[in-house]
Amino acid sequence: MSLRVQDPAYADKVRRIFEGAAFIVDLGVRLVDVGPGFCESVLDVAPRHLQQDRFVHAGVGATMGDHTAGGAAGTLVKPEETVLTVEFKINLLRPAIGQRLRARAQVLRHGRTLSVVESEIFARDGEKEQLVAKQMVTLAVVTLGGS
Amino acid sequence: MSLRVQDPAYADKVRRIFEGAAFIVDLGVRLVDVGPGFCESVLDVAPRHLQQDRFVHAGVGATMGDHTAGGAAGTLVKPEETVLTVEFKINLLRPAIGQRLRARAQVLRHGRTLSVVESEIFARDGEKEQLVAKQMVTLAVVTLGGS
Amino acid sequence: MSLRVQDPAYADKVRRIFEGAAFIVDLGVRLVDVGPGFCESVLDVAPRHLQQDRFVHAGVGATMGDHTAGGAAGTLVKPEETVLTVEFKINLLRPAIGQRLRARAQVLRHGRTLSVVESEIFARDGEKEQLVAKQMVTLAVVTLGGS
Amino acid sequence: MSLRVQDPAYADKVRRIFEGAAFIVDLGVRLVDVGPGFCESVLDVAPRHLQQDRFVHAGVGATMGDHTAGGAAGTLVKPEETVLTVEFKINLLRPAIGQRLRARAQVLRHGRTLSVVESEIFARDGEKEQLVAKQMVTLAVVTLGGS
Repeated sequence: MSLRVQDPAYADKVRRIFEGAAFIVDLGVRLVDVGPGFCESVLDVAPRHLQQDRFVHAGVGATMGDHTAGGAAGTLVKPEETVLTVEFKINLLRPAIGQRLRARAQVLRHGRTLSVVESEIFARDGEKEQLVAKQMVTLAVVTLGGS
Repeated sequence: MSLRVQDPAYADKVRRIFEGAAFIVDLGVRLVDVGPGFCESVLDVAPRHLQQDRFVHAGVGATMGDHTAGGAAGTLVKPEETVLTVEFKINLLRPAIGQRLRARAQVLRHGRTLSVVESEIFARDGEKEQLVAKQMVTLAVVTLGGS
Repeated sequence: MSLRVQDPAYADKVRRIFEGAAFIVDLGVRLVDVGPGFCESVLDVAPRHLQQDRFVHAGVGATMGDHTAGGAAGTLVKPEETVLTVEFKINLLRPAIGQRLRARAQVLRHGRTLSVVESEIFARDGEKEQLVAKQMVTLAVVTLGGS
Repeated sequence: MSLRVQDPAYADKVRRIFEGAAFIVDLGVRLVDVGPGFCESVLDVAPRHLQQDRFVHAGVGATMGDHTAGGAAGTLVKPEETVLTVEFKINLLRPAIGQRLRARAQVLRHGRTLSVVESEIFARDGEKEQLVAKQMVTLAVVTLGGS
């Protein structure tokens, strides 16, 4: 894979993608790892993240997976570029139960105009961590301040 | 289409799907319409729903679309059944900008074990409402209290 | 929707998209309708299109839906442009049984670099035609002879 | 992962899934590897598999990936069961160019009623093999001869 960094300050850019997104801050999602073509975030599960059956709502995991995919793609764009999600799809493999969610995103293919990223979402319940969802995210590479 | 109601109290069930889901209540998503095979919800957009470019975060629309799809499928299950999302995919057609989001879900196919629902998410900016996302959701029909 | 034609010879372009694709010709898929933002094709089902349970193979419908989506998006690009599928997702709503498949594609959103198209696939069994699959297709707008 | 074989004759079942599917035989797709939770197939690319830009048609890879996913899930069902695709999504990472396609499918999660499988499609051009597409497939576990 050709996952070449084009912006030496990519880690700062990804940090801003997380800290500047009100919804991500409000949910409690925190960036914990970032490098060329990958990104990882965690969330301490609170009662407000649950759905009617007491599982973490699918929307919480999907949001984390999408945003963390944006972080991963964001490591590979030029200084004047950013990324914007075009579409994603997610399979919920098992109910998300536990105290902490973790999303790990890996770029599969980064092109001039599009980036394709895969995110895995894990739930940790006590000592046990399980893959609870898998997501593929397609993002557009867009020029900042441009159209 | 064969979208036959099997539970005369389906509207109560759907109301519980919305009111019993902490994440949905926390986001501010409200059920506004429900009938055999369809469901509709709205959300007043607040600053905390935005992402770093000041658009509504894709995760907000995806959560609404998913949950409202669950409401639509929930109108067609038996009294002792409920639904659980298996997977979904969403295309973000344009940035979601505006004061209000609306999600309209329509069941495409309801079977004994699976339901397929389509959700459209609209953003209203002033007087103008635009389709901002389209989603397909696959849900499992599960027996309450069963495995 | 802004589905403006930019190439007066769009119908010829779409005809070439169908006639120039060996796999489509080999399958027996025929273009039957085309206009600004939409496209329709049909296929007479033969034994070689079936899978092990005697239904039409999911890959046949998916191929038709994808290619017909390309035809629909192809009506809206500039003379020097064409389209290339980036990703698609398809829900198989019921087994495809019958003598003829029909794919109808409609552009949901056409931008400078991406087009999002929805395809519906119908199977006609005797006098009865049913929706058997629904597909969303994301296509890149690319310059002919360019990279 | 709990990928337990429930049918000692699973390899024969998967062989029938390939040999009994007319469309797969007609395309030229051949089963080359099968084991608990995985399956692999190859296709020698012929001119009839191409699209208008001389790449292998997306529908060919999608068909292989879907069918090979069915083979992988088929290794884990009971003797009286089989699998049927419910939905899939595929990202085409780069144009498929080459003499041979290979699809490798791995079950991510196998349940009583649903199986989720990931397929990777590779194209070999001369000595070089590249990942050209990635697919997630959801399959229903159904009882043979049942409804």
